[in-house]
Amino acid sequence: MRIGELSRRTGVSVPTIKFYVREGLLPAGELTSPNQASYGEAHVQRLRLIRALLDVGGLSVAAIREVIVAVDDPEQSVHELLGTVAGGLVPRYDREPHAGIEEARKQVAALIAARGWRTYPGSPAAEALAVALAAVDEVGHGSFIEVLDSYAEAAERVAKADLEYVARNVAREGLVESVVVGTVLGDAIFSALRRMAQTDTSDRMYGQAR
Amino acid sequence: MRIGELSRRTGVSVPTIKFYVREGLLPAGELTSPNQASYGEAHVQRLRLIRALLDVGGLSVAAIREVIVAVDDPEQSVHELLGTVAGGLVPRYDREPHAGIEEARKQVAALIAARGWRTYPGSPAAEALAVALAAVDEVGHGSFIEVLDSYAEAAERVAKADLEYVARNVAREGLVESVVVGTVLGDAIFSALRRMAQTDTSDRMYGQAR
Repeated sequence: MRIGELSRRTGVSVPTIKFYVREGLLPAGELTSPNQASYGEAHVQRLRLIRALLDVGGLSVAAIREVIVAVDDPEQSVHELLGTVAGGLVPRYDREPHAGIEEARKQVAALIAARGWRTYPGSPAAEALAVALAAVDEVGHGSFIEVLDSYAEAAERVAKADLEYVARNVAREGLVESVVVGTVLGDAIFSALRRMAQTDTSDRMYGQAR
Repeated sequence: MRIGELSRRTGVSVPTIKFYVREGLLPAGELTSPNQASYGEAHVQRLRLIRALLDVGGLSVAAIREVIVAVDDPEQSVHELLGTVAGGLVPRYDREPHAGIEEARKQVAALIAARGWRTYPGSPAAEALAVALAAVDEVGHGSFIEVLDSYAEAAERVAKADLEYVARNVAREGLVESVVVGTVLGDAIFSALRRMAQTDTSDRMYGQAR
């Protein structure tokens, strides 16, 4: 199909499609004449993936490029791939570290040991957790650490569901994409569910007192 | 204290502090002379909150303003406040709706009914969930819906821990702030824990096969 039809099929404007090609997110179309290119179903699917990661996942173009490179690389093992994708999708913080970061790192290491998780302190996700805990402590809510065990238990439940879903998608290409979708869109899904469950719990606790 | 000391105490630059005052995120200091203002501990605390919401929570300045207005409004009941804060912290999507949005809304309504949640289809969180589910479906992973029950169960567990934490912070001002901190930074904390648990589960499932 021509670029105009690709745009109609996906709801992404022609200039934006050209931008994604320049940025390396989308492969160029096949040239059918010096100034005309042809696009296929793979382009439709890839554009939908980019749009979901941008709109719902809130990823930056740079983060999406990193993920797409991993999706397209046939060399990595499944487990490495999962690590790349999960690690690449953790936010990175540029600002100077919070005052309590060392203490928070110790809390994270203790949590990993207590739960017997096969991950290591200093991994991108562990570091993201330490930064978040240090930030919570800095705003005077250090006691929020009390909820950490409940959160970790719930995270295990969600991760198990995630990986079981992934295991059902055996084809490698589908597998990588399902990890990306599950990790990024899963965050958005869980965050929405958490707010709905909070509203429910809050109504049960405080609703009658209005 | 003067603005220079406020900057040193919080690690936020003087121009940025002035920007927050102009944007209504931070109350102005008390004028002690025509061109000098004095700041107190409340300013330190507020700046730390803003920084945590920006850096770790990833909120926009506009979203933070909305939250701060709710925190400062003494009129709302606790339950309304929880609704405002939780609802205000849901991402809003500007793009045209995904093709499957009506079907996704039905799935969300069915989930709310099945779990007996005291919330309603069409609430900001329910709508955010519908958009995320429609996006997942559009990229060809409609079967991701299989994990929804596990996610909802885990979300109930997390929301219960959240609200129990909130209930321990009985003073109203501390309560609102703890909801904000818990909701925004709690997302970041849970997201990091989920990736750590994924790494663990993935290592158990695929690590030996390398």
